[in-house]
Amino acid sequence: MSDSEHSDWQKTTIDSAQAEQHPETARAVAKIKALRQSIDNIDSAIVSLLAERFKATSQVGVLKANAGFAPEDTKREDYQIERLHRIAVDAGLDLQIAEMYREFVVTEAKKRHQRIAEAGGDPGVLDVFA
Amino acid sequence: MSDSEHSDWQKTTIDSAQAEQHPETARAVAKIKALRQSIDNIDSAIVSLLAERFKATSQVGVLKANAGFAPEDTKREDYQIERLHRIAVDAGLDLQIAEMYREFVVTEAKKRHQRIAEAGGDPGVLDVFA
Repeated sequence: MSDSEHSDWQKTTIDSAQAEQHPETARAVAKIKALRQSIDNIDSAIVSLLAERFKATSQVGVLKANAGFAPEDTKREDYQIERLHRIAVDAGLDLQIAEMYREFVVTEAKKRHQRIAEAGGDPGVLDVFA
Repeated sequence: MSDSEHSDWQKTTIDSAQAEQHPETARAVAKIKALRQSIDNIDSAIVSLLAERFKATSQVGVLKANAGFAPEDTKREDYQIERLHRIAVDAGLDLQIAEMYREFVVTEAKKRHQRIAEAGGDPGVLDVFA
């Protein structure tokens, strides 16, 4: 492959027409496409599960606000850290990724709990609540 | 509830022994526990799916490094943004959450692609790869 071709490929997305002139690259492109379809399917599942997760945490937020509990719960967080760490090891997931995921969902859930508490336990304050 | 009790509850995690003295609060605690079990089940599923997602993106990283493709792919990202937006609307997920999820997984996948590329296409550079 010439330098200019290589440079084109570095800059642009995968162009299968261009790639088909090179059989080995064409095989790589086909494999990448198949993997991307699996990645897209996994994303569909995760986004659907995140929707369910935030519906559940919004309900927790309403219950907490009405009962006078604080949005933060450090014991619960310690339990979640230990538990997700264990599941990540079993699943073969980089522990850093598992911890980033946990921090992301817990932080966002707490922000939403705070908004519900400030609205006097009214979940309508969130954009989405079913 | 007295001010001091309220203040205790604000600071601490939910104490069911304490809560059972107050029937309404006890009901809220029971509901929160049930919701938390569902949240934990959802987290198990998501962490397992994230493990599969990063296995797939690591394979993409190896194929890209060997074929000389760049870790970044803006066309692919535009497609993912539009697609996940659509799925989030269908699922009833806050679009901000969906976009944060997408940015998190794409950013981390790109970092790992970069590390694989720098290691000459060797996936062993990652902590986890199966």
